[in-house]
Amino acid sequence: MPRSPFDWIDEQAVRRERAGLVRTLRPRPVDSALLDLAGNDYLGLTRRPEVTEGAAGAARRWGGGATGSRLVTGTTELHGQLERELADFCGFEAALVFSSGYTANLAALTALSDRDSLIVSDAGNHASIVDGCRLSRAGTTVVPHAEPEAVRKTLDAHDGRALVVTDSVFSVDGDAAPLAGFAEACREHGAALVVDDAHGLGVLGDGGRGALHAAGLAGADGVVATLTLSKSLGSQGGAVLGPAKVVEHLVNTARTFIFDTGLAPAAVGAALAGLRLLRQEPELAGRARAVAAELHRRLTAEGLRAVRPDAAVVSVQAPSPEAAVRWAADCREGGLAVGCFRPPSVPDGVSRLRLTARADLTRDQIDAAVETILRTAPTG
Amino acid sequence: MPRSPFDWIDEQAVRRERAGLVRTLRPRPVDSALLDLAGNDYLGLTRRPEVTEGAAGAARRWGGGATGSRLVTGTTELHGQLERELADFCGFEAALVFSSGYTANLAALTALSDRDSLIVSDAGNHASIVDGCRLSRAGTTVVPHAEPEAVRKTLDAHDGRALVVTDSVFSVDGDAAPLAGFAEACREHGAALVVDDAHGLGVLGDGGRGALHAAGLAGADGVVATLTLSKSLGSQGGAVLGPAKVVEHLVNTARTFIFDTGLAPAAVGAALAGLRLLRQEPELAGRARAVAAELHRRLTAEGLRAVRPDAAVVSVQAPSPEAAVRWAADCREGGLAVGCFRPPSVPDGVSRLRLTARADLTRDQIDAAVETILRTAPTG
Repeated sequence: MPRSPFDWIDEQAVRRERAGLVRTLRPRPVDSALLDLAGNDYLGLTRRPEVTEGAAGAARRWGGGATGSRLVTGTTELHGQLERELADFCGFEAALVFSSGYTANLAALTALSDRDSLIVSDAGNHASIVDGCRLSRAGTTVVPHAEPEAVRKTLDAHDGRALVVTDSVFSVDGDAAPLAGFAEACREHGAALVVDDAHGLGVLGDGGRGALHAAGLAGADGVVATLTLSKSLGSQGGAVLGPAKVVEHLVNTARTFIFDTGLAPAAVGAALAGLRLLRQEPELAGRARAVAAELHRRLTAEGLRAVRPDAAVVSVQAPSPEAAVRWAADCREGGLAVGCFRPPSVPDGVSRLRLTARADLTRDQIDAAVETILRTAPTG
Repeated sequence: MPRSPFDWIDEQAVRRERAGLVRTLRPRPVDSALLDLAGNDYLGLTRRPEVTEGAAGAARRWGGGATGSRLVTGTTELHGQLERELADFCGFEAALVFSSGYTANLAALTALSDRDSLIVSDAGNHASIVDGCRLSRAGTTVVPHAEPEAVRKTLDAHDGRALVVTDSVFSVDGDAAPLAGFAEACREHGAALVVDDAHGLGVLGDGGRGALHAAGLAGADGVVATLTLSKSLGSQGGAVLGPAKVVEHLVNTARTFIFDTGLAPAAVGAALAGLRLLRQEPELAGRARAVAAELHRRLTAEGLRAVRPDAAVVSVQAPSPEAAVRWAADCREGGLAVGCFRPPSVPDGVSRLRLTARADLTRDQIDAAVETILRTAPTG
């Protein structure tokens, strides 16, 4: 008599329980009283009427779904409009929209490499980049975090096509990648540079045009950006930006583009509205950065340890995984939602609270957040 | 002087051009006059006011995006509602919603296998299953299409954990998988069975409860379904259905769940409205199948070759890739959008027109579609 096919799941669940590592979904109500410093709604656009009406209007006009792959029936003129405005805003020749930032990264990495290529990937890169490297047929070398010299040496040792991939802003610590150094190493070797600007769009660069625009690399030869529409733009989806020929290449070869249903019109409409708001209110980006700087200053002034934020993520160290979990729970008890990172999802083993410095936080909200975090901080 | 990093793209583009294999995006206008037999809107729900208002209302109430991972701020009570109703409708204990069917498949395959597992995958499986197998750390054996005996033999030769994965309805030919035979082979060996019911939900089973419900396998021990919300339900997104412990396991371990932004509220609202419509109008499923049967009957009566449809996809053979492309273009010229499959996206090398038998096609539309396809058919 064979065992039940999923008995092993029970064993893993017990181990997770014993290690205190059980993750649970906590559905939020529509009128949550929690002050949210945990999400990625950097500019507070998700609830702006322009954005929600952008979603609503697009659904009514274009339907509840895209109905098929972008290559069959899933491309509407609305998708094209978003792609043109996104490319134009960020300073790239062309853009291609995906159903998520995750699938955009899989597309860029698999379609821009092959069996004979090398992918050089920063050790701090997001899971979707790690999975993109694995799904590609390329060899992958993971290099120490934020070290252009390590990238250069790795490229030196490789003869043939190569691609360097990095987050622009790393989601755990909120530190920025040394893009200029990476780009220099790439140029020397004729390697492509793929930058995931998920946490940079809307926050970095002139008016929120992103980390690549800030670094003078938007539209540069051999440079590709991947983006998400679900953070600063308040919607859902992802995009790849680059030379038109790269976009054409992805249309023809990227499996997460060809074999996925197109992004729903409502998400396209919301992202387009978010992007237009960002154009109209270029001060939002600087505001998010200023809130982050203030949170960092006030928390570290009281003795907490945090990396100086390069964008809108403020990451505060906790003395242990247990302390981090308790701290986040105490914040929640005090009306404040914060992120909590701990092993195994942080490769360096350091547990952290992760705070999102939203551009729309009021003075009172910032004060309340600082007060709650300090009041609940682990002692010693 | 190194070459430009993307010179190789030009070379590939030229090869694609010469082979006549260039794929181009054709954005559709809001008021397209084309009769659509190319998309996957099987029940015609995408444009139903209940569905578009479901999207619009959810965006207004919950925001333009989910704001974060489902594990952080991205789970709303609306997500929970959809998951409960989806599980209940299809006859499973629990459900988990993803941003696409693609990422749902990646989740199920990577989280339910490990380095010591074997995945047995049908040769006709969708690209997202193929990619899920590759992304998993399991060994994968691809078995001949729709042959339970081949599955049984492969399982026989493997000692340890195993998982069999198949589409319920294969998207190229529209033929159904021999689910009872697969399930029997799995039971004998204590293997799990993962079925992608993307083309079965809304079309097969009592009132459209799907292929697993039809086969008496919904909720069975060791059986997991993956679904898409972007076909019959007229929205966007995907889901995994199975025992509650499988869903808990995915919440804790599936990278495309943990590291992706939650599905946008508008898509959740549209899918929920689509699901409720399907409950209220259980005749929709049978209607889609009847339209498929009629298209097949009338086209084959005139000498065209097509596999008898098991669901709502009718796949008509073309004599060559060039003929298929011309045929589809001529249909389009005649006001009819049809899908066109040709090498290399069809593994058997047979080019096809792919027709979607929508439940909401009128008598006149069916007549017009048949007339156009026959009139433009390649001669000889």
